[in-house]
Amino acid sequence: MMDFLEEPIPGVGTYDDFNTIDWVREKSRDRDRHREITNKSKESTWALIHSVSDAFSGWLLMLLIGLLSGSLAGLIDISAHWMTDLKEGICKGGFWFNHEHCCWNSDHVTFEDRDKCPEWNSWSQLIISTDEGAFAYIVNYFMYVLWALLFAFLAVSLVKVFAPYACGSGIPEIKTILSGFIIRGYLGKWTLIIKTITLVLAVSSGLSLGKEGPLVHVACCCGNILCHCFNKYRKNEAKRREVLSAAAAAGVSVAFGAPIGGVLFSLEEVSYYFPLKTLWRSFFAALVAAFTLRSINPFGNSRLVLFYVEFHTPWHLFELVPFILLGIFGGLWGALFIRTNIAWCRKRKTTQLGKYPVIEVLIVTAITAILAFPNEYTRMSTSELISELFNDCGLLDSSKLCDYENRFNTSKGSDLPDRPAGLGVYTAMWQLALTLILKIVITIFTFGMKIPSGLFIPSMAVGAIAGRLLGVGMEQLAYYHHDWAIFNSWCSQGADCITPGLYAMVGAAACLGGVTRMTVSLVVIMFELTGGLEYIVPLMAAAMTSKWVADALGREGIYDAHIRLNGYPFLEAKEEFAHKTLAMDVMKPRRNDPLLTVLTQDSMTVEDVETIINETTYSGFPVVVSRESQRLVGFVLRRDLIISIENARKKQDGIVSTSIIYFTEHSPPMPPYTPPTLKLRNILDLSPFTVTDLTPMEIVVDIFRKLGLRQCLVTHNGRLLGIITKKDVLKHIAQMANQDPDSILFN
Amino acid sequence: MMDFLEEPIPGVGTYDDFNTIDWVREKSRDRDRHREITNKSKESTWALIHSVSDAFSGWLLMLLIGLLSGSLAGLIDISAHWMTDLKEGICKGGFWFNHEHCCWNSDHVTFEDRDKCPEWNSWSQLIISTDEGAFAYIVNYFMYVLWALLFAFLAVSLVKVFAPYACGSGIPEIKTILSGFIIRGYLGKWTLIIKTITLVLAVSSGLSLGKEGPLVHVACCCGNILCHCFNKYRKNEAKRREVLSAAAAAGVSVAFGAPIGGVLFSLEEVSYYFPLKTLWRSFFAALVAAFTLRSINPFGNSRLVLFYVEFHTPWHLFELVPFILLGIFGGLWGALFIRTNIAWCRKRKTTQLGKYPVIEVLIVTAITAILAFPNEYTRMSTSELISELFNDCGLLDSSKLCDYENRFNTSKGSDLPDRPAGLGVYTAMWQLALTLILKIVITIFTFGMKIPSGLFIPSMAVGAIAGRLLGVGMEQLAYYHHDWAIFNSWCSQGADCITPGLYAMVGAAACLGGVTRMTVSLVVIMFELTGGLEYIVPLMAAAMTSKWVADALGREGIYDAHIRLNGYPFLEAKEEFAHKTLAMDVMKPRRNDPLLTVLTQDSMTVEDVETIINETTYSGFPVVVSRESQRLVGFVLRRDLIISIENARKKQDGIVSTSIIYFTEHSPPMPPYTPPTLKLRNILDLSPFTVTDLTPMEIVVDIFRKLGLRQCLVTHNGRLLGIITKKDVLKHIAQMANQDPDSILFN
Repeated sequence: MMDFLEEPIPGVGTYDDFNTIDWVREKSRDRDRHREITNKSKESTWALIHSVSDAFSGWLLMLLIGLLSGSLAGLIDISAHWMTDLKEGICKGGFWFNHEHCCWNSDHVTFEDRDKCPEWNSWSQLIISTDEGAFAYIVNYFMYVLWALLFAFLAVSLVKVFAPYACGSGIPEIKTILSGFIIRGYLGKWTLIIKTITLVLAVSSGLSLGKEGPLVHVACCCGNILCHCFNKYRKNEAKRREVLSAAAAAGVSVAFGAPIGGVLFSLEEVSYYFPLKTLWRSFFAALVAAFTLRSINPFGNSRLVLFYVEFHTPWHLFELVPFILLGIFGGLWGALFIRTNIAWCRKRKTTQLGKYPVIEVLIVTAITAILAFPNEYTRMSTSELISELFNDCGLLDSSKLCDYENRFNTSKGSDLPDRPAGLGVYTAMWQLALTLILKIVITIFTFGMKIPSGLFIPSMAVGAIAGRLLGVGMEQLAYYHHDWAIFNSWCSQGADCITPGLYAMVGAAACLGGVTRMTVSLVVIMFELTGGLEYIVPLMAAAMTSKWVADALGREGIYDAHIRLNGYPFLEAKEEFAHKTLAMDVMKPRRNDPLLTVLTQDSMTVEDVETIINETTYSGFPVVVSRESQRLVGFVLRRDLIISIENARKKQDGIVSTSIIYFTEHSPPMPPYTPPTLKLRNILDLSPFTVTDLTPMEIVVDIFRKLGLRQCLVTHNGRLLGIITKKDVLKHIAQMANQDPDSILFN
Repeated sequence: MMDFLEEPIPGVGTYDDFNTIDWVREKSRDRDRHREITNKSKESTWALIHSVSDAFSGWLLMLLIGLLSGSLAGLIDISAHWMTDLKEGICKGGFWFNHEHCCWNSDHVTFEDRDKCPEWNSWSQLIISTDEGAFAYIVNYFMYVLWALLFAFLAVSLVKVFAPYACGSGIPEIKTILSGFIIRGYLGKWTLIIKTITLVLAVSSGLSLGKEGPLVHVACCCGNILCHCFNKYRKNEAKRREVLSAAAAAGVSVAFGAPIGGVLFSLEEVSYYFPLKTLWRSFFAALVAAFTLRSINPFGNSRLVLFYVEFHTPWHLFELVPFILLGIFGGLWGALFIRTNIAWCRKRKTTQLGKYPVIEVLIVTAITAILAFPNEYTRMSTSELISELFNDCGLLDSSKLCDYENRFNTSKGSDLPDRPAGLGVYTAMWQLALTLILKIVITIFTFGMKIPSGLFIPSMAVGAIAGRLLGVGMEQLAYYHHDWAIFNSWCSQGADCITPGLYAMVGAAACLGGVTRMTVSLVVIMFELTGGLEYIVPLMAAAMTSKWVADALGREGIYDAHIRLNGYPFLEAKEEFAHKTLAMDVMKPRRNDPLLTVLTQDSMTVEDVETIINETTYSGFPVVVSRESQRLVGFVLRRDLIISIENARKKQDGIVSTSIIYFTEHSPPMPPYTPPTLKLRNILDLSPFTVTDLTPMEIVVDIFRKLGLRQCLVTHNGRLLGIITKKDVLKHIAQMANQDPDSILFN
């Protein structure tokens, strides 16, 4: 089958853009390669070294991916932080400092007002030399919007001009690529450079988007580019996809500082083919990436994780009720978001709207910035907001959210009892409610624009706000009504019963789960963020409820919905195919079509074959013993056939249109003066997959999924009857689910 | 294909003992069942309720498994604790108290001597009323050995008489069962009861074994038994295996208190077919089990985990050198253990030794007990030993291992600087070295005896001792030579540089990794035990080194080695098949054998078929259009054929030996006075899997693995040529690996 490896004709065995790879063939090729190296290794020391270095190249590659994606994540974090602060002002002590660092270096800073120091100048201070009064406010407001527009304009222009693939979160496309699809340039160096730059710009512009999803794309670009340094991975599409799975894990690992969660995310959400070997390597890459990021220390606090929290109070069984309520909210929000966002994206695709991406981005940025500035909670960056919402109020917290009455009136160290909310908390509640509405609405329009945009952070923000609101509500309820039956068994007066920060965390998990339909990886990420097994049950309850509610309202997660919207040929591995159709209902040719186009093994001339190639567009042809018997010999790919005939005509003497093509092992002796024959057995796949016409489609779908086939031949009682391609399978699934089968676009 | 579901003949579609299931058929059956329920659910409210309850029955089952296995684990923990202490003495305040609980209730206990209280009486106190002097020592020694022998005798007798399957760890067999093999009774109620009882006895007898592996077996028994309450799982072998995968996760979850580690263990080590749905359910079952165990609170300290540790000092990069050394030690120990243990088990299987399991157990117990009593570290239970080794010396620790000089001479709270070792530490070092040797030798003979025995704890103990020894060595080196170049950059005088407990933990991970070849799940379990991301890198480094070293000395982990020793038909999913053989080299009939036995679709009589059935032992037969054309129609199983013919002869009028059997859709009209025909299309599998004779075996192995096939037919140019069964594949793999192909025993 793989003889052509030894005498390669350039191009044979490669794929066109927007085509599906054949996993079986790719894995076979890799095993052949491996076998050859192992056999040679006994011959010389040099070959032995080559063999050992080949075996370890996978681990080396993982190390490099970890280092590179960790460094890039650190760079993005630092730049985004600085540019976000640039919207509000600049540091006189050195313009390259962000607000926090600027005041660290200051001598004039007190503990209470950590954020205020003379070195840090707001724009109004710089321009009109004051920070007080309505005019200064307007100046700051104006500068904020101006910077936001500038960043967004730069981001969308760079994407449009240099790398159109750099937009979006990239996860739907990466899922599709990992399932065996080819999108050239999607993980290339231009995409990497432009995505890194524009991601910083997009995050800094204050739009309702996160950098976590795009970081997965960035890590996968790193993986793909580094693959080029290793023969083993450069030339083999299947092996390269193993590396990309690991890179995706490294991406999530640096996005959240959660290496185990990253591996599980790659396993649960992104990957298609995930052997155990990849599991170990992913874990290694994720760890290296996380430690690289920690050494860069972008948050300046030695913490690996994005939102470090520590809670002091255990939860009570009764609290499962509000947690499940949050789960329901998360599921509803997830279903609503997916539906409206997909509807809006479809509108963008099909109407004039899609033609003006720059204007769209500028309008959305302007609206976001104008509405965001007046409200403290929308003005701060979304990750800061989430941090603050997760935070359990300690003694020294100066945040409005911690403005309870009798704040300093406690005896028990850092363990604060439940207290009545003060004015600050009530104000914060109102502002948070407004923030919630703004985030819900604006995120629907933001996700899918032509800039890098992730969904994790906005979804978590929505959930965290809802959770904190509910948490504070519960806390006040428990404080004022601790004699109610539901409270009095576990919540005595003056005790610290309810932690609103935990509610925020549970809400964030619920909303993220509703949108992405992750469960285990989500809980593990959250668990790594907090580092306590204690809260697994609340998180699990919320994540499960959210998934069930959202699934009841629509089966697909946001990534699958976007895959379908774009018509990518992605064969979902999670859904069972549940219809009772047979292979004969799906195969081509259909009942009234002309017969299947086949080649015979020893009776067709070059001209016959070229005619068939020119008259059809099939990507491959079955080869049979004879048209009468229809007994299958093998399968030959169109691309290989074209390249081989062309090559033979150029290089092999005497090949003319009347030369007979032989797919058999030996060609019979030819009478003199006939043109030489063309032997093409080397490009023939002698082990094509076949199923009978009566095979249930559920089994066919299973075979396609598990073996990663591109096509499968259909026989009846030993005779060749038809062919099923991956596209046929996808179209059939779409049809059975009452969707438009023509929405599947590529091969 | 599945028509017989509607008109079931009892027995059709079931399997014999020690046979392999057909995953494709089982999954098809489940989908048919599901489809039927879904279709019916639209008809009536009752059917709708049935459909919903069917959908949730999986979750309910998980809940029950979690509750039951958590409770059993708690019961086992408590009983084993009590009986272990019974070897040393008894509580006068109530014989049902163990040593610790006995002294909790006492008023006469001081903080320094928590273990001594008047209520607790050693055997010498009870018998000769004193605890002092050589005679008392001998009395205690004698009683210790006596109790150990009694427990061991009871354990081995119960196993021998009531449930022979209750011996060993059970993990090799569970792996085999999960891969699709049938061992009736292996997960039955007798096995559960006897294994639970004898596990307590075996652990209490002081043998060098753990309860962690057998707990997985116990949890799987719970899972299997509970499956009988749900139609969906009782009747379907494939669905039941999904439940068992989840049960295995619950087992590890309660064994270590590590739910995430349990799920990953099930995924990495035990399971064969692990869809995402099972991942979620496993996680749920593992959580429920862990929380049930925590509510029972067997350790009396509210801790979920077996070995709770908290370290205060970060590790330094240079320490990776000793950690990697520990990894190498772990790998060497793993390889050594597997080799010697397998050699010993083979001897037991093949010589007279195997006939006297009771005597063998008694001898090993006697040797263990006699050698163990004089040494404090071998006398205590292995899990206590590991706990003590993992422990970081605090201010209040009274253990010998913490007997450093200037113990109380510190100013910095609980953070103790490195100190010179005192006399106690030196004594402990010697005793630990002796313990190490004893454990290494005795475990080799213990694992595989006819009692329940797990490997996790003894392996961890070996590693923990080696690690602690190295750790204390490093600590003293750093104390006395803190001016050496390797130390002086990070370890100033009086600082707390090195944590010997961490070394013990890393060593434990390394040794466990060397024996089981787990990596990710191992690190996650360890990480859950400590709850800190901080130590992932040391653990990972040690686990990886250990795996590499052990793999270099022998590819198999202990479980795979035992599977091979027992000849189970287990198709390893981790190893790639790397040889360049073809399907035609493996298929039956071989080149010079008689032709393949086939049935024709419309020309054989009942007698012809019965003759074939009686003359051959094949478990199935291909059905062809005619012997001349050899064009394949389908495949029929021997068992189904026998049952159907028997059934027809009994129930259908006029079926005689000359009746013609039709596998076609329609039988032609028969002339009058001929016996009625027997239509058997309903038992014919119309979609048998076929490959061509030139298909590389690597692809065939892949198909068998991924689709879970039992057999596959081989064709050449559309003609049926031969058959490959799972056993043929396994024999071929064994042959290629230079092993005896006849070591594969079952079908």
